[in-house]
Amino acid sequence: MSNIREVSRAAGVSIATVSRAISSPDKVSETALKKVYAAIEKVGYRPNMMARNFRAVRAYSIVVLVPNLSNLFFATVIRGIEDAAQQKGYAVLLGDTRDSHDREQEYTRLVETRQADGILQLRPHTPGKSLEPDSGMPMVSACGCENTPYPSVRIDNTGAAREIVDYLITQGHRRIGVLAGLPDNPHSNDRLQGYRQSLENAGVPFDPDLLVNGDFTMGSGQMAASHFARMKDRPTAVFSMNDEMAIGCIQGLKSAGIRVPEEMSITGFDDIEFARYSDPPLTTIAQPAEELGRASFNTLLELIEGKELQQTETVLPYEFVVRKSTPALRR
Amino acid sequence: MSNIREVSRAAGVSIATVSRAISSPDKVSETALKKVYAAIEKVGYRPNMMARNFRAVRAYSIVVLVPNLSNLFFATVIRGIEDAAQQKGYAVLLGDTRDSHDREQEYTRLVETRQADGILQLRPHTPGKSLEPDSGMPMVSACGCENTPYPSVRIDNTGAAREIVDYLITQGHRRIGVLAGLPDNPHSNDRLQGYRQSLENAGVPFDPDLLVNGDFTMGSGQMAASHFARMKDRPTAVFSMNDEMAIGCIQGLKSAGIRVPEEMSITGFDDIEFARYSDPPLTTIAQPAEELGRASFNTLLELIEGKELQQTETVLPYEFVVRKSTPALRR
Repeated sequence: MSNIREVSRAAGVSIATVSRAISSPDKVSETALKKVYAAIEKVGYRPNMMARNFRAVRAYSIVVLVPNLSNLFFATVIRGIEDAAQQKGYAVLLGDTRDSHDREQEYTRLVETRQADGILQLRPHTPGKSLEPDSGMPMVSACGCENTPYPSVRIDNTGAAREIVDYLITQGHRRIGVLAGLPDNPHSNDRLQGYRQSLENAGVPFDPDLLVNGDFTMGSGQMAASHFARMKDRPTAVFSMNDEMAIGCIQGLKSAGIRVPEEMSITGFDDIEFARYSDPPLTTIAQPAEELGRASFNTLLELIEGKELQQTETVLPYEFVVRKSTPALRR
Repeated sequence: MSNIREVSRAAGVSIATVSRAISSPDKVSETALKKVYAAIEKVGYRPNMMARNFRAVRAYSIVVLVPNLSNLFFATVIRGIEDAAQQKGYAVLLGDTRDSHDREQEYTRLVETRQADGILQLRPHTPGKSLEPDSGMPMVSACGCENTPYPSVRIDNTGAAREIVDYLITQGHRRIGVLAGLPDNPHSNDRLQGYRQSLENAGVPFDPDLLVNGDFTMGSGQMAASHFARMKDRPTAVFSMNDEMAIGCIQGLKSAGIRVPEEMSITGFDDIEFARYSDPPLTTIAQPAEELGRASFNTLLELIEGKELQQTETVLPYEFVVRKSTPALRR
């Protein structure tokens, strides 16, 4: 690891000047400051962050805001973030916000007090409920939705949902339930749009009775199953907006005596590892979770380094994975 | 455990001098330094405790070392850590080490450079393969095993394994497979001891053919299933050392045409949320994952604040959860 002596050598100034530039930048000429900062960059010096007045240089850490760390999709995105950050010498500060806006705000103080250089937000942008972009704060959405008002990395949620519902239609289904997230969740809205587009293209009218809102947990999927099971005119397939809800729904349907997939097909979203080990294994959308994490860190780093972004939105490819939960409908 | 007061008494110098000798040795006379160091030796001043004095100012952040963030048990422990840390105004720096000792060491530099005050280690202590306790660094194991050489929080892994195998024996099983972790994994060893104790108490000889080593992933559980399925004299039950391997094993058994639990019972360990949604739902050991996280943070905070630990090992209660994967054996 490089030290203050190397900075002094690279900057061509005394060690005392380097030290002053770090602790009391106002006491050092602008020319000397520039030299010191350039040298710090060059030799990769990581100063003691406790130096209170160390404001003009970087903390070499970022904050990740995650609504729920026990959600496997988010945990995998964070693995990607952490991997990319570590390669660039950045530390990752974890903010498990438990979906609380107050906790999000507390974490932004780490950036305001320069203990972190920027924010990666995993919660999709919900106006009034999640952080607004702030001019002074580099921030990137790692799980973007359409119309995220700040730089984001995402997949085409609407297109993916359309593709999966199109497939169910080609398998013979016309009565397709949809297990969505909460009504104000932007991912849920983007995916619902894809569901509706697919039905419309196939000339199938939208039936609001077939829409159930969950909260992306297995428990909510299980509850949704009892709604579908009790219906007089049951769906023959259910499009669930994540794998956890699909897995919970399968258990609920089985408990209600409905065979899956024989009597009801089901699809997921995300392709967490458990999707493959579910019974039946889930047809789903494989999101590039680690890659979303890596790409969002790299975008944030460009912002931190003051570079101009080539694009404010990066849309990564997803993969449609067919497994045994969606056989052709037999009539 | 000895403290700074005893060092001061043994050295015949003031506490302030001892403190200075540790934090700024250049400000203390050589004579005093020698006395202090000799006294530290003599009273056996705990290395971990020394760390506090190095820290005139705190970073108010800690590093969490986790071998794999997409392991749900670890992710849940971290939620508990993060929650406790946030309440005390500490930030959590994430170190996903991907089981690499080199990456562990890189993260310890955050403590050396004072960007963090201490370390929470989630990987159970493996001599030569994971961090050794270091004199300058407050460190606590959040997922301890027996004989962890530094402060730890854990459950009684051996007792829990014994309890679960005892239960399988009362259900009528005598031929019980064991799906373990890698041979050098300390959790695996502690749990294997419980398995063997239970067999011994029941007068069942240990059969090495019934032991399969996995790596705590679902994939390894699936591979183990084919071993059990191919055996001439198959086990009637399998004790898996975590839920993921149990879930993978169930899928592997079903693919091989073996009905679970009718032809083979199976048990897990951890009680991740998916255990409840597995088909059949898993009998397992519920570890208090968030509480392990909270308790280990609180222990680390005591070390950081220079308090004397009441106990270096905290053993939290687990819960034995019986679900449908372990019906009584019919003969």
